[in-house]
Amino acid sequence: MQLLEERILRDGKVLPGNILKVGGFLNHLIDNELLDEIGKEISALFSGSHITKILTIEASGIAIACAAAHYLHAPVLFAKKEKTANVNTDCYSAEVKSFTHGNVAHVIVSKPYLNADDKVLIVDDFLAHGEALRGLISIINQAGAELVGCAIAIEKAFQGGGDALRAEGVRIESLAVIESMSDTSLTFKK
Amino acid sequence: MQLLEERILRDGKVLPGNILKVGGFLNHLIDNELLDEIGKEISALFSGSHITKILTIEASGIAIACAAAHYLHAPVLFAKKEKTANVNTDCYSAEVKSFTHGNVAHVIVSKPYLNADDKVLIVDDFLAHGEALRGLISIINQAGAELVGCAIAIEKAFQGGGDALRAEGVRIESLAVIESMSDTSLTFKK
Repeated sequence: MQLLEERILRDGKVLPGNILKVGGFLNHLIDNELLDEIGKEISALFSGSHITKILTIEASGIAIACAAAHYLHAPVLFAKKEKTANVNTDCYSAEVKSFTHGNVAHVIVSKPYLNADDKVLIVDDFLAHGEALRGLISIINQAGAELVGCAIAIEKAFQGGGDALRAEGVRIESLAVIESMSDTSLTFKK
Repeated sequence: MQLLEERILRDGKVLPGNILKVGGFLNHLIDNELLDEIGKEISALFSGSHITKILTIEASGIAIACAAAHYLHAPVLFAKKEKTANVNTDCYSAEVKSFTHGNVAHVIVSKPYLNADDKVLIVDDFLAHGEALRGLISIINQAGAELVGCAIAIEKAFQGGGDALRAEGVRIESLAVIESMSDTSLTFKK
């Protein structure tokens, strides 16, 4: 998606350690026009898939999921991060390791909101090692729902999470795919 | 807003301790059609106010803020909750007490994303004691920005936060106003 790639080059900040900051337009301050275009693009990619739920994870996935929901006409379900792994029989749960924050989040979804009839699209802002996607896929499997695919704003392809999931048969559509990063710059996959 | 009141009566869950659960349509699973109508309603209330930023707080305010942003054509800025009160000179910050969770959250906004030229609309899902709004208003004041008003999905009027802020001159528009709650039911303000 050229608009997103151009915006990353213009306003993204590349920092040492493979860090890309997009807080100026995507996950702190959110450009409403860009968000709307991202929603349209995701909708175009998954139109005809009869999505019944869009699953994301708080907090930075919610805006993108809602933009997609506007055009796909499906509800958004966001997995919540809990501080402790409470045993809660009313929830599906998964552990999600964050390489960025160096911790493990326990993410939960209330059981009544996801079930075996659902055809689910996962949406998130970033895909790197794929830990968040694997957690969300686990929750979909626990519910017996069908995973239609994953729509990601920015994939850091060199960290391998996306291709590992594709090799397992998961459909992943990333709007901007970063092939490599140095301490100060990045290159998109052509 | 009749659609929201009807939905609260149909799908909301009233629990002892003045708790209203709306996870089935507003802040866990999010009904995309209801969300869109909420966005239109907020836009209608604040059209002509020349809003330049919509400020909310993670996580459950983000969806509503994005729905409003779609129709108000303004970017969304969401305050982030931090576990510790790190001294960070690049951020505006405030402490927000949660009566629901019995804790204090340190919320931050990066300074470059909010400035003295901004005309800000605050959006959130709930207004009860007003602690979250006061935290966000403090951040707007720290930036020297202008607070245009607050748009709230559900106000629990009997907890007094909204009227205290109105008495201080803050414009608050709540789409559904709960006048009283018992352990099993609620009454809307007419």
